Amino acid sequence: MSKLDLSLYLVLDPELCGGLAGMVQTAHRAAQAGASVVQLRAPQWKKRQYLQAAIELKAALDPLGVPLIINDHLDIALAVDAAGVHVGQADLPVEVVRRLLGPDKLIGLSTSNASQLAAAPLHLTNYVGVGPVYPTGTKPDASPVIGLAAFSQLMRDKRLPAVAIGGIQAGMAAPLIAAGVDGVAVVSAICGQPDPAAATAALLNEIRGARS
Amino acid sequence: MSKLDLSLYLVLDPELCGGLAGMVQTAHRAAQAGASVVQLRAPQWKKRQYLQAAIELKAALDPLGVPLIINDHLDIALAVDAAGVHVGQADLPVEVVRRLLGPDKLIGLSTSNASQLAAAPLHLTNYVGVGPVYPTGTKPDASPVIGLAAFSQLMRDKRLPAVAIGGIQAGMAAPLIAAGVDGVAVVSAICGQPDPAAATAALLNEIRGARS
Repeated sequence: MSKLDLSLYLVLDPELCGGLAGMVQTAHRAAQAGASVVQLRAPQWKKRQYLQAAIELKAALDPLGVPLIINDHLDIALAVDAAGVHVGQADLPVEVVRRLLGPDKLIGLSTSNASQLAAAPLHLTNYVGVGPVYPTGTKPDASPVIGLAAFSQLMRDKRLPAVAIGGIQAGMAAPLIAAGVDGVAVVSAICGQPDPAAATAALLNEIRGARS
Repeated sequence: MSKLDLSLYLVLDPELCGGLAGMVQTAHRAAQAGASVVQLRAPQWKKRQYLQAAIELKAALDPLGVPLIINDHLDIALAVDAAGVHVGQADLPVEVVRRLLGPDKLIGLSTSNASQLAAAPLHLTNYVGVGPVYPTGTKPDASPVIGLAAFSQLMRDKRLPAVAIGGIQAGMAAPLIAAGVDGVAVVSAICGQPDPAAATAALLNEIRGARS
């Protein structure tokens, strides 16, 4: 697999995207506009529907070379041969996921503080999500908000590729990139926007601008 | 694997059993008293906890030769090398589970009517659960109650080993066995009973009596 590009990481939300069909359409448009990773996250869904969404998303994203990451459900990732799995602190441990997924797939781990970052298994984890940086409405069980100052501090000790997540909207990516993060993950900044492709392009512009 | 004995199939419930420790203790006592299969079912749990329960249950049941079946989460079954997976109609399709689990593991499928029974993939499915036979309080999203008369009718066309499930309490197993089912699955008839071992033994007596 080519080097993982975390620049703009889209996390799909079934409700904001308008269900399965809306998720596939949004993911496709965002990927065409430059989103570099897409994650399927639908914690309320039963697995039959989850599988169907994963199949359709993979078919839409594979031709564009954009990796599809499955949140939590390793079995769905195995079933559709997804690019990887993203786990949280209460999901399957990275060690278990790596053992079952093999050495070539991507594994991401959600972290929300310095001790969780320090505990991420270095040689088994491809990237960490760090958040919530800002208050978010799309994850009811989110950890306490980190804020930009503490986030910047966390980035100083960065040991793994990292993506910032949590409440990141248009116009908010630049200071995170400036703090040293490799990319930003968004949900509502793309899902449910009137023009997901335009929203994606604007975010990417902002990210690239902050890097140059 | 030796022939699957479905006689008394215990489905664990985290709340009725008193959490993880209670589930392991109940499963161990029931298996010692003759329960022939144990299923871990905890749909509300995150996977880290699910995995821990599966590890502890397997350690308790393996020495007794009682198979541990994991409800829904194929990835947990793979992680702990469980004896099998049980799926419902909205979970992963049997075909997908069989492909990832291999030919030697057990796969059970929940069914609640004749068309679902007819659709069960014969050569990939080890057994079907048929229910709810009676009203049940442990599965809020259960299908309509089948009742004994319709259940007996379903057993006349039985093509796969079958276990009856749904509201089965002490004293209610005999007519189901007489109708031709291979075993009964219980939750609250063992989980949360003052003496799970005695409850198990009494149910087994009833099942064996109905067979002779």
